Amino acid sequence: MNTHVEDCHITVIGAGTIGLSIAALHLMHLKTASSLTIVDIRPDLRSHILTYLPTFLPESLHICVPQVGLASTLPDAVRHSTIVQECGPENLEFKSALWAEVERHAPLDALFWTSTSGIPASRQNIQMRDPSRLIVVHPFNPPHILPLLEIVPSPKTSQSVIDRTIDFWIKRGREPVLLQKEITGFVAGRLAWALLREAIHLVDQDIVTVQQLDRIIETSMGPRWAYAGPFKSFHAGGGPDGLEGLLNLVRHTVQACWDDAGRVNMGDGWENKVVVQTREAYGAPNLEERDRANRMVLRAVQEAKRETDALD
Amino acid sequence: MNTHVEDCHITVIGAGTIGLSIAALHLMHLKTASSLTIVDIRPDLRSHILTYLPTFLPESLHICVPQVGLASTLPDAVRHSTIVQECGPENLEFKSALWAEVERHAPLDALFWTSTSGIPASRQNIQMRDPSRLIVVHPFNPPHILPLLEIVPSPKTSQSVIDRTIDFWIKRGREPVLLQKEITGFVAGRLAWALLREAIHLVDQDIVTVQQLDRIIETSMGPRWAYAGPFKSFHAGGGPDGLEGLLNLVRHTVQACWDDAGRVNMGDGWENKVVVQTREAYGAPNLEERDRANRMVLRAVQEAKRETDALD
Repeated sequence: MNTHVEDCHITVIGAGTIGLSIAALHLMHLKTASSLTIVDIRPDLRSHILTYLPTFLPESLHICVPQVGLASTLPDAVRHSTIVQECGPENLEFKSALWAEVERHAPLDALFWTSTSGIPASRQNIQMRDPSRLIVVHPFNPPHILPLLEIVPSPKTSQSVIDRTIDFWIKRGREPVLLQKEITGFVAGRLAWALLREAIHLVDQDIVTVQQLDRIIETSMGPRWAYAGPFKSFHAGGGPDGLEGLLNLVRHTVQACWDDAGRVNMGDGWENKVVVQTREAYGAPNLEERDRANRMVLRAVQEAKRETDALD
Repeated sequence: MNTHVEDCHITVIGAGTIGLSIAALHLMHLKTASSLTIVDIRPDLRSHILTYLPTFLPESLHICVPQVGLASTLPDAVRHSTIVQECGPENLEFKSALWAEVERHAPLDALFWTSTSGIPASRQNIQMRDPSRLIVVHPFNPPHILPLLEIVPSPKTSQSVIDRTIDFWIKRGREPVLLQKEITGFVAGRLAWALLREAIHLVDQDIVTVQQLDRIIETSMGPRWAYAGPFKSFHAGGGPDGLEGLLNLVRHTVQACWDDAGRVNMGDGWENKVVVQTREAYGAPNLEERDRANRMVLRAVQEAKRETDALD
């Protein structure tokens, strides 16, 4: 099998937002002799794809959209696949039945990727004859722009599947990060939800509004973390002793924040305040602006790093 | 009193990293007939300022550095101040004694700002005759670049002090955010430490390394939050029902992450692993690159928003 850019037959299962964004990402890297197929049971699949897939693509690639293969049944969709990437509903029964069927019809060396944000491969693979073939490839929304892919094998996933998966994404300039063990919600999700829990608490306690809280992030941690994650940032902020110096300096404040942290739960009654404030602050989101901003931020970080290399 | 750009006599207390960065920020906005004074007890204050203050400034402003007033005693430093901004050590005894002395020597209408990251104004003001004058103005490191200022009054801070403080920063194009109540660690800190706690847990459990965790943030939440904070981002990712739709979709995964969240504490024994991995990954930080990247990211977000306005 060949996971090089050439000769790659990719099947995306599910034509929802994530499926279309993933499909767009593959289209941007697709070369002659390769193919992309989308499978979904929706009856209007063709018009749906023709309408929405272009919104994820630069204009120069709109002409490729009619060449995307469409399928309404799994056996047809995966028969010649090199890669099957599932972006279906977050439902264990659906996913575990799906992989058993995919396995019956796909080529023996095809890679099986699930985009799940929460159901580990070790639960999705229970009906498979060969569970070594399945691996989580968890993108971050929107995946055609943000480079992260969390690669999460089950204990049964083979090393060759792990290696070929990482190799595929590195060759496409993306950022696959291999988790050493399965864990609830994976890493990006856990970090985002941890911050969100505290954010909800602070809005619920009327310390700040939803919009104030967002502005705080957008003018502090956001720009900082776009360039350097929390450890690298705190290391840079700690003076000659780096992260260790910083931790010594702030340990009492940090521990006090941890001791006082919010412990909101789903269904606790904060939902209405948070949802109403968010709707009133933002109305209908401007996804075009979001995508443009995300692209430009990523480019800015690359340019800043390139300038360093040029200065050295 | 006049907090307009003109006629502003600013005294910065403390010539550490934050003090110098704040001083640089003021220099960038200082006009004729205004002045900046730095007070610090270090004996090498003049050479310290001449050496390090320029590193926070664009080259065109290096010529202003020798014009910065220097003082080694408080009474001299604050006698003519419009604003006294304290960037001293995080120590309650130091700060509360300081404000009592500042109050004795500064003009009656001078604003008193503390850059503390954790000691609220209501504790710092206990020795003041008029505690209505003190307010927290908490910057985010590095303050000459990142726009956020958390404005945190004590229950005794006067409305006029709040208004003049916010007005000052808005006129300088910064982002003052007024917290409605005092709270341990303020908002930005609580959010950053909440995420850091989970980050430490994930490294401590060997799910990912320090560097992998940073890369995860840099290629997902970082660029996203540089443009839109968590509520705005999740609202945009939730389809037609916005944040509400998103919460309904992920509520079980999110609650599972919250139930399973790490509860590390300072001194639990994770420090060595985290500090060693950080040092090995990053060595000596490149602050020039960091500052350049942060500036370029902020500019990228502004440009993306300007393009929207141009398209409308």
